[in-house]
Amino acid sequence: MLTFLATPPLAPLSELAPLLAAAGRALHARGWALGTSGNFSAVVRREPLVLAISRSGVDKGRLSAGDFLKVDDKGLPLEGNGKPSDETVVHLTVVRERGAGAVLHTHSVRSTLLSEAAGDTGGLALSGYEMLKGLAGVATHEHSEWVPIVENTQDYDRMTRDVKAALLGNPRAHGLLLRGHGLYAWGRDLEEAQRHVEVLEFLFEVEGRLYAASGRLKARAAGVAAGGRDGGD
Amino acid sequence: MLTFLATPPLAPLSELAPLLAAAGRALHARGWALGTSGNFSAVVRREPLVLAISRSGVDKGRLSAGDFLKVDDKGLPLEGNGKPSDETVVHLTVVRERGAGAVLHTHSVRSTLLSEAAGDTGGLALSGYEMLKGLAGVATHEHSEWVPIVENTQDYDRMTRDVKAALLGNPRAHGLLLRGHGLYAWGRDLEEAQRHVEVLEFLFEVEGRLYAASGRLKARAAGVAAGGRDGGD
Amino acid sequence: MLTFLATPPLAPLSELAPLLAAAGRALHARGWALGTSGNFSAVVRREPLVLAISRSGVDKGRLSAGDFLKVDDKGLPLEGNGKPSDETVVHLTVVRERGAGAVLHTHSVRSTLLSEAAGDTGGLALSGYEMLKGLAGVATHEHSEWVPIVENTQDYDRMTRDVKAALLGNPRAHGLLLRGHGLYAWGRDLEEAQRHVEVLEFLFEVEGRLYAASGRLKARAAGVAAGGRDGGD
Amino acid sequence: MLTFLATPPLAPLSELAPLLAAAGRALHARGWALGTSGNFSAVVRREPLVLAISRSGVDKGRLSAGDFLKVDDKGLPLEGNGKPSDETVVHLTVVRERGAGAVLHTHSVRSTLLSEAAGDTGGLALSGYEMLKGLAGVATHEHSEWVPIVENTQDYDRMTRDVKAALLGNPRAHGLLLRGHGLYAWGRDLEEAQRHVEVLEFLFEVEGRLYAASGRLKARAAGVAAGGRDGGD
Repeated sequence: MLTFLATPPLAPLSELAPLLAAAGRALHARGWALGTSGNFSAVVRREPLVLAISRSGVDKGRLSAGDFLKVDDKGLPLEGNGKPSDETVVHLTVVRERGAGAVLHTHSVRSTLLSEAAGDTGGLALSGYEMLKGLAGVATHEHSEWVPIVENTQDYDRMTRDVKAALLGNPRAHGLLLRGHGLYAWGRDLEEAQRHVEVLEFLFEVEGRLYAASGRLKARAAGVAAGGRDGGD
Repeated sequence: MLTFLATPPLAPLSELAPLLAAAGRALHARGWALGTSGNFSAVVRREPLVLAISRSGVDKGRLSAGDFLKVDDKGLPLEGNGKPSDETVVHLTVVRERGAGAVLHTHSVRSTLLSEAAGDTGGLALSGYEMLKGLAGVATHEHSEWVPIVENTQDYDRMTRDVKAALLGNPRAHGLLLRGHGLYAWGRDLEEAQRHVEVLEFLFEVEGRLYAASGRLKARAAGVAAGGRDGGD
Repeated sequence: MLTFLATPPLAPLSELAPLLAAAGRALHARGWALGTSGNFSAVVRREPLVLAISRSGVDKGRLSAGDFLKVDDKGLPLEGNGKPSDETVVHLTVVRERGAGAVLHTHSVRSTLLSEAAGDTGGLALSGYEMLKGLAGVATHEHSEWVPIVENTQDYDRMTRDVKAALLGNPRAHGLLLRGHGLYAWGRDLEEAQRHVEVLEFLFEVEGRLYAASGRLKARAAGVAAGGRDGGD
Repeated sequence: MLTFLATPPLAPLSELAPLLAAAGRALHARGWALGTSGNFSAVVRREPLVLAISRSGVDKGRLSAGDFLKVDDKGLPLEGNGKPSDETVVHLTVVRERGAGAVLHTHSVRSTLLSEAAGDTGGLALSGYEMLKGLAGVATHEHSEWVPIVENTQDYDRMTRDVKAALLGNPRAHGLLLRGHGLYAWGRDLEEAQRHVEVLEFLFEVEGRLYAASGRLKARAAGVAAGGRDGGD
């Protein structure tokens, strides 16, 4: 299993927040966290668990250090302004199950398309690419990375259970996709988590172009869409 | 209907203009307002209605605070240099019908292609995407957003009537497309309007790639094009 | 014919060079003038004709004011360091035939692909797009712009004659394509020329996606390519 | 054979490192060196050979002068912190066989896709494009550039032998592709190497779009991928 036995020294919110904000703005600039999508976290303390995480609803192009708050191991706010992201529980699950030091959640066009197109098979296989060596512990391009795809839901208890099951069932995965939603990637620290996002998004673009070229891109069965205008929310 | 009961405090031109200019330059940088395309506005006062709007013909990559002027509820200039955009009446219509605090009009490659490809069906359905939760009042990805598509015209009275009809007929829409032309999106304030542009343009790229992959991208019936060179203007 | 009766006041090299350099770096940033491709000019004086033009072989990402020199109406250097671009004669032809104040020559992926795909028909028709209104003198999207496509050659006398013929034969054109090579666009001043590049490149991307979707993208008949490795220089 | 008889004056590490770092950050910004992919070098001294090269494992978006070290002609560190890239031997081979002053290795989406799609034919032919004139010594678009494709391996001795054979067999090549891995390009100095990367990556995008449009993009036979989840590393 891919854990971090020798974890790096942790840092206080005041050190982590500007680094997380810069990472978030860079992801927004690449179009991987448009609007208010995406949320970003890093571990402040292990025992008891304290997480620095972006507040809900903030535009990621304007993200600043003041947009991060500290939460406890149940996701309750300890310090800082605003409401923690609804998906804080997913971040906490990844931190616990993987021993991760940082978790980045992004929404790219490619991950949205691929997670739908490959969703029925439960995951996406990435193999044979040199870029895979950017993933921690991968020493050769002759590696097959299985990125599990979890169904999307607004029931965060269910999402947390599904994500936990996907992590336990795929102990070597470096990221997971929520269907029609986006990527969760993590690392022993923020730098490694950023690297994993870049590696996986790069490979999603490669695979996405192959899917398009081979006729495997397909729309979600859009029952609602056929129902016509203003179908409600 | 999606209105803004508790509207945020309004601001004078001197505060709004630099923010609008920065928003416009960012949209230009993404390729969503190339050349002089696009125009951007925000409400200065409600009663009587006063709007800050970009002047006509300015390059959006060089947009500065001095490129905005104040107009009254008929679109007549009150303060500032230059001529208000011809589409000022559309902005005023959106502000009145939706109670919007800001309106952003962009021209992207994707919205141009999709508004032609889906134009005959009168609108574009976006459903099942987590990114939809970036739209105000949308709490779940199990939402179907209907983006009405209005035929393009240079008759601004007709355009205004058609846009008003589309707004009244689709009270929950967060944006509308002009065919072969671009997107109008709005929000209770500039920040929300920007978020809506990013969310909708993201989903236009997702849908545009699905349209291309499934053979649904098609050119406008280009009668003129066949007529040969220099067909005139 | 599209000429500029009331031409704007001209400026000396010291004023034009930094503006031309900034325009060139912006075009490089968008990927429309990678490597040393592209060259950029503006008129310093009309009678006798003096042109400020980028020197040959400079990387467009590093373009600075010192990379421009003054040439006379035969393209001979008057002031500044380096060799004028080989395509200086084409710039001079456009300036003479159109009365242009600035000429921008770019090489984009889209113009390369489209100029090959549509090359046999002698030009590319762009019609029905609102973005066309960014071209000088175009007041409605119900306009058909014919962009002539001229065969590429390294014989600059022949290229000059072919470009002149294309300009005379298409008096309303705002730009022309060299096949497998790129775009020449111009305007009464640098700002207008930049706008025309953005408008045309935007529409090349729109048309390029339609060509790809409808199977009209095709490779140049690559006789040499089949001949195997290292077939010459 | 394409060598550099009149090589430019060499520079010490303190001068080369900031230029190499800036080049690397620019390549990362274009998405051609995401994560820790890519490595960059320049010659400090010829006799005996001393090379400045990026250290292993550094994020290319954060590359700074301190991330470069000096190595000898066997790739052993002489000065600076960190471990030289595993691919240092490939850089040294290119420097020796071509007399290059700088070598840039990038991983783009397009080079990954094309090197797989064209890999079985041993190389990629680029011909008829004006952009080819950005390659040193190429004076006309009627040039056919053969970019050899070498099978990827984690055995760096074998990779070095294969790269050397490809260089000897294609004395006029300006770059070579590693299959599923990326591009090596070089030049007499860093500026020329950067130009060659931009020219080749531009043409990879052109060809990549033609491959996609003509059904020639194809996935690697993904035997491992079918094996299901978590198939090892």
